[in-house]
Amino acid sequence: MPIASVDLSSPHSNTAERGGLLQAINDQAALYANLIEHAKANTLAPWLQQPERFADTQAVLLIASGSSFHAAQVARFWIESLANLPTQVELASEFCYQHLRSRPHTLVIILAESGEAADTLAALKYAQQLDYPLTIAIGHHADSTLMQQAQWQLVLEVGEQHSRIATKTFCAQLLGLFLITQTLAQSQNQAIPSDIDAELAALPYAIAQVLSLAPQLKQWAQCLQQPSAIFITARQNYTPIASEGALKFKAMAHRLAEACSCGELKHGIASLATQKIALIACLPWDSVAEKNLADLRQFHHHHCAIFVLSDTPLTKINGLNSIQMPYKLNHLNPLLYAIALQLLAYYTSTTSDSFEQNIKKATSKDVA
Amino acid sequence: MPIASVDLSSPHSNTAERGGLLQAINDQAALYANLIEHAKANTLAPWLQQPERFADTQAVLLIASGSSFHAAQVARFWIESLANLPTQVELASEFCYQHLRSRPHTLVIILAESGEAADTLAALKYAQQLDYPLTIAIGHHADSTLMQQAQWQLVLEVGEQHSRIATKTFCAQLLGLFLITQTLAQSQNQAIPSDIDAELAALPYAIAQVLSLAPQLKQWAQCLQQPSAIFITARQNYTPIASEGALKFKAMAHRLAEACSCGELKHGIASLATQKIALIACLPWDSVAEKNLADLRQFHHHHCAIFVLSDTPLTKINGLNSIQMPYKLNHLNPLLYAIALQLLAYYTSTTSDSFEQNIKKATSKDVA
Repeated sequence: MPIASVDLSSPHSNTAERGGLLQAINDQAALYANLIEHAKANTLAPWLQQPERFADTQAVLLIASGSSFHAAQVARFWIESLANLPTQVELASEFCYQHLRSRPHTLVIILAESGEAADTLAALKYAQQLDYPLTIAIGHHADSTLMQQAQWQLVLEVGEQHSRIATKTFCAQLLGLFLITQTLAQSQNQAIPSDIDAELAALPYAIAQVLSLAPQLKQWAQCLQQPSAIFITARQNYTPIASEGALKFKAMAHRLAEACSCGELKHGIASLATQKIALIACLPWDSVAEKNLADLRQFHHHHCAIFVLSDTPLTKINGLNSIQMPYKLNHLNPLLYAIALQLLAYYTSTTSDSFEQNIKKATSKDVA
Repeated sequence: MPIASVDLSSPHSNTAERGGLLQAINDQAALYANLIEHAKANTLAPWLQQPERFADTQAVLLIASGSSFHAAQVARFWIESLANLPTQVELASEFCYQHLRSRPHTLVIILAESGEAADTLAALKYAQQLDYPLTIAIGHHADSTLMQQAQWQLVLEVGEQHSRIATKTFCAQLLGLFLITQTLAQSQNQAIPSDIDAELAALPYAIAQVLSLAPQLKQWAQCLQQPSAIFITARQNYTPIASEGALKFKAMAHRLAEACSCGELKHGIASLATQKIALIACLPWDSVAEKNLADLRQFHHHHCAIFVLSDTPLTKINGLNSIQMPYKLNHLNPLLYAIALQLLAYYTSTTSDSFEQNIKKATSKDVA
């Protein structure tokens, strides 16, 4: 039996693709301003302005894979807290095999980048067989198979994709899920927070300010060359942002990276006594920030370098490297941390190359 | 402000603790035979024989941390498939901050090793404030605070703990959760599979046979010295067993290890082009096995060594290292893979030491 194999030895991203990656990250302020304009003009999806269509909804089931799975996990917190609907998230590749009992009045939302992945299509078909009453597909191609087979569609046009690595598509999904959360909150007669319009209007400016952190993130990228692995930690709906960050470090910089909820640090990475590791934390200054900082302080040790993204100044705390996030949004704040981690993973990938090239140069000199 | 720190440089396990670890792993066949006897004699917890007490239950919420969280994730599949109750699993450290809507008629099951961890106690208190109708605590100490504050208790006596690393406590929790699943299935008038008693009777023998794989697992442990990281993959309710295995590799062998659902391999480790990694798979020969094997074959490459635990002979497949699991149970089969991974992590820890000592010896010879 022949064994199919991927050539893991050739990194996915060549120089051209890498340029496209940085462009995709930097495009995001303008891109989401445009999507928000569309949503306001009701040209994104007419049903977003028809909450009565979802009045019978009693629960939400999100199905996705990879980056889209992380976006769904962030959205779970929004839907539960703003629309007051119990929400669960399942992996597309597992959904068909789980023998779940179908819950009546459950809205199924399936997220996908291409809308052609076999697992995702099978999950939608299975949900329809289980007789879930409503299905929404969120994707980037209006004519994909997934879009054609779901009852409602949310198409998030993000322009040409220059890389197979999700960056702007991920945050566009988050924005789309936030817009759906608003519709669901209205459908459930939940009060919409008065600051939501202002927050949507502020998002592009906030993103531009995060992008301006590039020089500081480049410096961190230099420090991230030495550790044998990178751990990213957070809490609540920043935890899936940490997972997405770890995926970016793997995909862009080919580095060992793993995410971990702050509360679970003591069960996992505390044991990696003989490894030199880096710990990156998303630490918005909210009601659990002090608790998270206490968890982080346990790792203040020479085997573990700590890097904290926070919207409060932490520069004076001994043993922590910190970058102050420039803007504080309320619900959409996780997007800002996602973009900061995208940039950090990107710069780690470029630094890593020059690092390897420097080693090669030094070696050939020695030989010569 | 003084910063508390853990000394990550001194590995947790000294030689005495390590001996205790191996003993705890090897004790498991006799231990669970004893627990099953107790359950049959109805001396484990009287309410296990009173399914009518749970007749109103419409959903189950499991709350736990660390290893207990993985046990809860395995149990979710049992409860959904055998008791036909929708089930969700939450991290104890996140539960209080999640603003979940309390679902009526939901049974809360909280798992803990010590029953004194602050996060777990806070989660129980919060669940009681949210007015969940029934709470069960599963633990190993009858007089722990958690046990005293829950409505029902399942005490799983596992004898003296020789190490802070969960081994027999994890599988005892699984067994306890399986017994509760039976009670819940009866409470919902679901047909109990006719093979369950035979399966419980066979479990100790199956475990003994897994323990007899030690020599083969030791050989694998030698091969696991070289890779910079170990990935463990599986599907369905073997995925949390993979997560538990990764935690054991971190805690016992201080190795970088991460779990990943088979369906997500393409999103994560496929990108680690420049790393030499090992991929361990739990591959029971079930309805998704062929699909999983196809996912694994993508990694047949010199940068990635593949190790497969399966109950079918896979020895002839080029590029795969395989060990044939000696016994096939139906529902309790994940326990067998958990124990195999415990042994593998244990032997990797011992091999790693001798490896380091050998290097030290070689170095001092050179100096002399």
